[in-house]
Amino acid sequence: MSAAPTPTESGVLRPSSGKALLIDGKRGSEEVLTEIAEKVRGLAGQGLKPGLAVILVGADPASQVYVGAKGKAAKAVGFHSVQHDLPATASEAEIIALIRQLNADPAIHGILLQLPLPGGADATRIIESIAPEKDVDGLHPINSGLLAIGNLSRALVPCTPAGSMILLEKAAAALGVKLEGAEAVVVGRSNLVGKPIAQLLLGRNATVTIAHSRTRDLPAVVGRADVLIAAVGRPEMIRGDWIKPGAIVIDVGINRISVPSHDPAAPAKTRLVGDVAFAECLDRAAAITPVPGGVGPMTIAMLMSNTLKAAIQIAGLKAAH
Amino acid sequence: MSAAPTPTESGVLRPSSGKALLIDGKRGSEEVLTEIAEKVRGLAGQGLKPGLAVILVGADPASQVYVGAKGKAAKAVGFHSVQHDLPATASEAEIIALIRQLNADPAIHGILLQLPLPGGADATRIIESIAPEKDVDGLHPINSGLLAIGNLSRALVPCTPAGSMILLEKAAAALGVKLEGAEAVVVGRSNLVGKPIAQLLLGRNATVTIAHSRTRDLPAVVGRADVLIAAVGRPEMIRGDWIKPGAIVIDVGINRISVPSHDPAAPAKTRLVGDVAFAECLDRAAAITPVPGGVGPMTIAMLMSNTLKAAIQIAGLKAAH
Ligand SMILES: NC(=O)c1ccc[n+]([C@@H]2O[C@H](COP(=O)([O-])OP(=O)(O)OC[C@H]3O[C@@H](n4cnc5c(N)ncnc54)[C@H](OP(=O)(O)O)[C@@H]3O)[C@@H](O)[C@H]2O)c1
Ligand SMILES: NC(=O)c1ccc[n+]([C@@H]2O[C@H](COP(=O)([O-])OP(=O)(O)OC[C@H]3O[C@@H](n4cnc5c(N)ncnc54)[C@H](OP(=O)(O)O)[C@@H]3O)[C@@H](O)[C@H]2O)c1
Repeated sequence: MSAAPTPTESGVLRPSSGKALLIDGKRGSEEVLTEIAEKVRGLAGQGLKPGLAVILVGADPASQVYVGAKGKAAKAVGFHSVQHDLPATASEAEIIALIRQLNADPAIHGILLQLPLPGGADATRIIESIAPEKDVDGLHPINSGLLAIGNLSRALVPCTPAGSMILLEKAAAALGVKLEGAEAVVVGRSNLVGKPIAQLLLGRNATVTIAHSRTRDLPAVVGRADVLIAAVGRPEMIRGDWIKPGAIVIDVGINRISVPSHDPAAPAKTRLVGDVAFAECLDRAAAITPVPGGVGPMTIAMLMSNTLKAAIQIAGLKAAH
Repeated sequence: MSAAPTPTESGVLRPSSGKALLIDGKRGSEEVLTEIAEKVRGLAGQGLKPGLAVILVGADPASQVYVGAKGKAAKAVGFHSVQHDLPATASEAEIIALIRQLNADPAIHGILLQLPLPGGADATRIIESIAPEKDVDGLHPINSGLLAIGNLSRALVPCTPAGSMILLEKAAAALGVKLEGAEAVVVGRSNLVGKPIAQLLLGRNATVTIAHSRTRDLPAVVGRADVLIAAVGRPEMIRGDWIKPGAIVIDVGINRISVPSHDPAAPAKTRLVGDVAFAECLDRAAAITPVPGGVGPMTIAMLMSNTLKAAIQIAGLKAAH
């Protein structure tokens, strides 16, 4: 067992064993939230209170937990926060009617539809009914397009990619490494995670490779990465000996695996692991995000950040953000 | 001097010297246009005639030539074709007023604003005023977004990237090479060319790397490419010995260079070259597009293709495209 890691100034932890710095997402998240709360206090003087509306369709227990956490975080930073619960039987038209009402509500600056919808219903048309300037999940095609064409001042960027970039910037700063010109490899190309991260990395002038399930020699592609982003959803698929020595590793994966027990009578235990074999990387990577406690906590902070940005843009304020 | 190349069935030429197949963009373009003309004849029976409006602001001679060629091609495939000339002094509001009129015109399915605007004026707001379903240049952020999220059935894709992909598919088919899992490298990341091509390659399941002016070791990155797309705008910058033997090379670059003359009294001569040192690649690449006569001719064909697609989508027809 390793001793407790030593925290550094920047929210990057220096572990007592292994060479890799641990990038602390919990602390990163707290920093973002603290800064947002300060700005919200400043905006109150200008008569602006950012408002976030979260829509929950159905009563999936995991979704209820996530939605609850979002509302709680919104209140904690001083936002106006509302939750709309619709029954699992709500039709597309009913959900869209609620969204149109929120689009027109001047107290609401961010609208988040909790996904997935019950029964895995297609959310495309519903997402497109959200006013793009209130689309704090960054999933409206206009926001995807603004990100793709590099208009980051206007785009609302999906939260997990935005949070991953903050941790990456932190690690690069702590290591004195430049992202510009670095070889970055993103494993995974979902619209929610992989593709937006690739675009953000390109915006930071990295040379960006996007790999996925059809990539022929994944270990070789991963081995080129000065910066590796894993967003696959396969427990510890990326092995330590694939990693280029000195790489920065951002592990977006969150996978629940069962922990073998010696006592067959004991209740089954599980734990969370990332897409990267964490322990194997500690002697090879220069920095790595742990799972849990890495990218995970950043997502909710970036949702608050997007809501603040939306409020400032909608109000037409030029407040620094 | 090499003898005339031998045409093959597929529009790919087998040159008499060197190993590389030459990918014939002129023939590719004619094939696309012939197919479009046929479909237009079929649609006439359903009472639909695709209409393309091209807006030219100012009187730049090169732009006049391009706009003229677009109108001529539109008429040749049987489209309704109109050209709107505005003075170089036209305000943004005046251009947008014309676009709104065309957005509402049921005879018009495609609206193209010839770029660049006089004096290099910013076209962002003007482009966003084009109805996304009539944006046949594929530059509205909604179309960038639909491309980014992989909704290719709805997206109107920028013409040069779409044309480049057709030539690439032709070459891959002629060579019996699979794009899925291939290492593709795109040099250049403009919103008009590099980035959309990268997204189209990802859609074909290639492993895609995007390189640009900040890429550290461009020859090494290029050397990984089974498929190389050059979209830089620097004459013959990519040298033959950078190319991986057997690669397919799509050269999007069109650069006019001056040809040295031995007679100082003779008028200065120029010629067009690509971003790739063509002659150096003939013994190394498996296939390459020439400049001129490669990607160039495809762009106008894809503009017609986008206009047809827009007309079919706007009419709500399910016609195969
Ligand atoms: N707050 C957070 O921290 C947060 C938020 C969202 C997601 N996540 C986690 O991030 C991970 C990815 O999420 P997602 O939504 O992007 O997942 P997703 O939509 O399932 O996408 C997974 C991607 O991984 C690729 N992939 C699958 N198997 C692969 C293999 N063997 N080799 C290489 N690539 C492979 C897939 O390629 P194809 O496209 O070829 O199928 C796909 O692009 C999950 O573990 C998820 O739980 C965390
Ligand atoms: N119909 C057609 O065939 C057609 C249509 C459009 C364009 N083109 C031609 O295609 C070429 C590219 O056009 P574009 O509109 O994409 O040009 P662009 O907007 O000027 O973009 C050029 C791209 O090349 C990159 N680049 C510049 N110098 C480089 C270097 N030394 N090493 C690596 N990358 C470098 C730039 O990187 P940064 O982003 O880092 O600056 C940029 O991303 C031009 O020759 C153009 O004439 C042809």
